[in-house]
Parts: sequence; structure tokens; C-alpha cells
Amino acid sequence: MALRVGVVGYGTIGKRVADAVSRQPDMVLVGVAKTSPDYLALEALEKGYKLFVPRDSLPRFSGAGIKVEGSIEELLQSVDVVIDATPAGIGKRNRRLYEEYGVRAVFQGGEEPDVADVSFCALANYERAMGKRFVRVVSCNTTALARFIAALRLGGIGVERVRAFIVRRGADPHEFRRGPINDIVLNPPAVPSHHAKDVRTVIEDVDIVTIAVAAPVTLAHIHFLHLELSKAVSRADVLRSLKRCPRILLLSSVKGFNSVAQVIEWARDVGRLRNDVPELMVFENCLWVSGNELVAVVGVHQESIVVPENVDAVRAMMGVASKWSSIRRTDESLGLVVEGKVYG
Amino acid sequence: MALRVGVVGYGTIGKRVADAVSRQPDMVLVGVAKTSPDYLALEALEKGYKLFVPRDSLPRFSGAGIKVEGSIEELLQSVDVVIDATPAGIGKRNRRLYEEYGVRAVFQGGEEPDVADVSFCALANYERAMGKRFVRVVSCNTTALARFIAALRLGGIGVERVRAFIVRRGADPHEFRRGPINDIVLNPPAVPSHHAKDVRTVIEDVDIVTIAVAAPVTLAHIHFLHLELSKAVSRADVLRSLKRCPRILLLSSVKGFNSVAQVIEWARDVGRLRNDVPELMVFENCLWVSGNELVAVVGVHQESIVVPENVDAVRAMMGVASKWSSIRRTDESLGLVVEGKVYG
Repeated sequence: MALRVGVVGYGTIGKRVADAVSRQPDMVLVGVAKTSPDYLALEALEKGYKLFVPRDSLPRFSGAGIKVEGSIEELLQSVDVVIDATPAGIGKRNRRLYEEYGVRAVFQGGEEPDVADVSFCALANYERAMGKRFVRVVSCNTTALARFIAALRLGGIGVERVRAFIVRRGADPHEFRRGPINDIVLNPPAVPSHHAKDVRTVIEDVDIVTIAVAAPVTLAHIHFLHLELSKAVSRADVLRSLKRCPRILLLSSVKGFNSVAQVIEWARDVGRLRNDVPELMVFENCLWVSGNELVAVVGVHQESIVVPENVDAVRAMMGVASKWSSIRRTDESLGLVVEGKVYG
Repeated sequence: MALRVGVVGYGTIGKRVADAVSRQPDMVLVGVAKTSPDYLALEALEKGYKLFVPRDSLPRFSGAGIKVEGSIEELLQSVDVVIDATPAGIGKRNRRLYEEYGVRAVFQGGEEPDVADVSFCALANYERAMGKRFVRVVSCNTTALARFIAALRLGGIGVERVRAFIVRRGADPHEFRRGPINDIVLNPPAVPSHHAKDVRTVIEDVDIVTIAVAAPVTLAHIHFLHLELSKAVSRADVLRSLKRCPRILLLSSVKGFNSVAQVIEWARDVGRLRNDVPELMVFENCLWVSGNELVAVVGVHQESIVVPENVDAVRAMMGVASKWSSIRRTDESLGLVVEGKVYG
């Protein structure tokens, strides 16, 4: 029987997760919950998603002529799992409701780790979420870091120490209120940034320090990664590990990939919905290996990198699929399987 | 007798160097040379600088009603040293002319190292330029790296290894043709970037790797620095070394400095000409030290950081001042001496 999934919060992450869930053969998207009767609500209805809203928002929706299926409580009565994609901090408040209705819930990285039983990145620690009631998918930058480390380890390359220097996108494309414009901002003005601690909620045994700044770009974050490996390896070894690992794109200058905008343009050209790139973008020309030292530049599509993770989290919690079985099913449904990727 | 200095090339660097030279008590700015009869030529005249132009440009200047003192050859007959601030590659061509007229010359970092007898950063290797005929001031990012390493070493802190991750400003404020807008670009798409090799033209014994990207910002470059020191030190030791070193600004969040735009705004508020910040900007809140490991975020005002270096290069070549005597004189004349700085 298909897993019954609801999505609460229909913004940048929620709308993508809803689309991804609706593409899974073993899941049913029961509906999406949101609070404002805006264009996103109309989009959801046009896609055939049932809309659930807080009881006190019902008049606003009916006033705007937007068809509502029922209240959020009614959604909760009809699902096995909720994916909560509400703004940071709201998930924690919602958790009481999920407990009351006895539904499992996936939270996002904006919440504190203690919102859930375990923090999650499919490649790194899928098994730890098996059977759990509350799981937190870590944030976009943390997912990127955990995925990169996991990819190397899956390839037999030990990672001892990570120093990550993060250039965050200032705003998502639609966030006209956010900056910076023409500035580089310490974000936060402290070392380490929260990302280091957050990576350790998924991969406990790594020595990691992170620093982050924000820049005037909306397309993607980039990370400069400086890793100490457990032993000397060749650049070819590293490339092999990254190339075989799902959810990692190797991009080379030979093919014209020298910037994040070029990768996003490619995603537009091949018809990807919303030009999403849920894969970690690894720029091959800036991959440098010497002895046990590795330097890399990676791009992170902040709007979509956590989408496949949310889907896998559902299967792990429900105990319906093993790690590689879920990852493959998710990637196939989202069109992320390419030649050379090894699942398991 | 005052040193007679000419500036050839009157763009971003040249105009600043001309202003700096004209403020030196032991130098006379004989004149500036440029090729286009534009608003910069008018600015130079308004400042009282004599204008020298290529012979075949004389009609264009007189046609534009701009008063010219003479040809570039005439300038060369009247100077001891030329500071060549022409676009990359032109300096090399000009060198033949300087040889012919028997004048010493300072070149910029856009030229290859072999344009000169020595590459130069005052804090790092002033003495090596003493008496030399041709000296090359390294580029803005290289100056920043060399200055940071030199500051630590002057404070008794050995630097073994440097990994520098550079976010370049996409364009200077007036360069409307350059990008990127809304992108992060591998610049260059290769590791190491030329900066690593260039630092070693000034500081030979450091193990250094650099990577650079370009971002949509005009105000400054920033560097993420990851250093391995020769022994474990405390954060306080590092701060002490940086605070006492000339041409380094320590900026803290307590005083509201969390971004490069805030530093530039401060420079505007205190009345600095063109809001120049020739000092290396070290963001104190992002300075992290653990054992022999150091992480830092620094800002580099690309338009002005090499200006004091050009002035010192002149004194070193002419053999008229020792290292600290020249650095102090330059800094005093440019208003860069602040409490706590130690010269020598």
C-alpha cells in the first residue's frame, strides 16, 4: 500500500517536495498545507494537489475564491507522514500537533536538531532514520558537506578533517527583500559557523570547521573545501569515488562549465522543472589532490539539494526500503540517474 | 635632493600612485603620462600634475583642448624613476624605453615576474629591492597574501603552509563592461591559481596553494585563509602580531564591521580620498586559531592596497631609506599610522 504523505508549508522547499512526492510510485501526496491564499495556492490546485489550511484561515481562502479541501487537522488524520517545510522555528511548534495526531514527521534544517530523533542525509546515515518517528533533514549547506564526505567514504577514502569556506547566496531568486547587493558579509561573524556543528549531527566522527560569508548571488552557494584524508590518494581515486556516487555532478571546463550560472542554464535547457539541480555540483577543474590533502570547489543549489533527502527520509522512517533501494527509487523518479552511478 | 618620479599610466593604480608620490616629502612628481584625452587627464591637470603623452597622441590632446607638457620621452629625460601603471603587458613593452633612457622603473603585478629584477612587497622583502633597476610590485591579491604571511613572521610566528581561497571582486566600481552579475565564476578554472606562484616570487619558502572565483561585487576581494604554522600558538599571539604590524586593519563586529561595505563606508565617513583602504582588512571575529592551525577572513581593497608598496619600491631602488624608515614615511604621508603599530 502506498505511503500517505502530507506536506505542511508550501514555500521554496515545500512545493518542490510536494512535486517529488507526487512522482514516487510508492507514495501518495494526500495534500499540502499552507496559510496564505496566494499564487502558490493556485499553483498547487492547478497541479491537482488538495489544499489544507489552518481553521482560522478558511475565510481568507474562501474570500479569495480558492478551493480548500479541509483543515490541517483533517490532513493529519489522513497521512502516515508529514513533511514539515515551514519557516525555521515553526516546525518545532507544529511537532506537538503531529504528536497529538500520531503522525510521523520530517523536519527541515532550519529547526534545531532536538526537534527530531535524528538528523539525516541519505548517503551518510540513512540507516539511522529507519523506524524513527521524527527525522530532520539537514540544511542545504550541511547536506552538501555531508554528501561530499559520504561520497569519498563510500569510495573507500577516509576523511579526517574538513575545513569548509562557504560563500552563501544572498537570497533565493524570488526574495526581493534580501541582500546583500555589492557586498560580502560575514554570515555569521563567527568561527565556526553553525554548519560545522550541524554536519556532526549526521557524521559524528569528522573534525570540521566552517566559515561562511554571503555574496550578491541568487543561484547557488559555493564551498571551498579543504580536506585532510586518512591516507594519500590519487586525484583519479577521488574522481572515481565522486563519479560513481549518486547525487553528485562532475562538471568540467572542457564542457563549458566554469560557473554556477552555466550549470543552472544547462538545467533550464534540458527542461528540468524550475531549473533545479539537486545534485552537488563538483567543479572538476578545481579539484586538487596532493598526498592526503584535497581541495575542491563545489556548488550547492540551495532550493533543491534537500528535496531527494526528504523523500528518502519518508521511506527510512516507515521502514519500507533499504538505503540504496530508496536512493535509487528517488533518483529514478526525479531523473537524477545517469550513467556510471553506482547504487549500493 | 628629492627623488624625481614619473607615473606612466593614469588609471586605477596610476592616479592613486601619483597622488601618493606627490604627498612624499622626499619625492617630486615630475608628471604623469597617459594616452587618452579623457576626464582623467583633466583631473590630473586640476591637481597640478604635468601631463606627458605619446608623440602621436599630441594632436588628439590639443584637439580636445587639454594642455600637454611634452612627450613621454621628455618625461623620461627628467626623472630618476618611472612607476609604470599601464595595463598588463604594456609594461613589458615600455621597459625597452626605460632602458634606453636609463631610468629605473617600478612595474605592476599584471606583468610577468621576468619584467623586473625582483618582485616586491615592502613588509616581506624590501631589502631585496635595494639598488635594483627594475622592480615589480605584485598584484593586489598577492600583496595581501604576502603581507599577511609577513605580519605573522615579523611577530615571530612561522608560516609553513598556506591554502588561500579567494573571492575576487568581479569589477572595479567604474568598470561597467565587466561581470559577473548574479554568478560565481571559477577565475581561473584551475588549481592552483597564479596567486600561489606569485606569492613565491616574494616569499620563496612557503608551501602555498590558491583557488580563486569571481563574484558580483565591486568593493573588495575577500580571502579565506587556512594556514599551518610552524608551532602551536594562541589566538592572542596572532592578534598581537597583526595589531602591531603596519598596513593591517583589525576589524571587529563589536564596532559594527561585519562586511567589506561597512569598512568602505567607514573610509568614506572619515574622508579618505576615494574611500581607499590600502591596509589589509582582517575580520577579527573570523580569526580562529587551534594548535598550529589558523583560519582567517580578510578583505583586500583592490584599487589601493598596492599604492604604499609602489612608494616604498621607489625608495628601495634608489637606496635612500631602510625598510622601516621608508614604510613609516609612506604610512605617515598617507595617514595610515595608527596607535599600536610598530615600525621596526
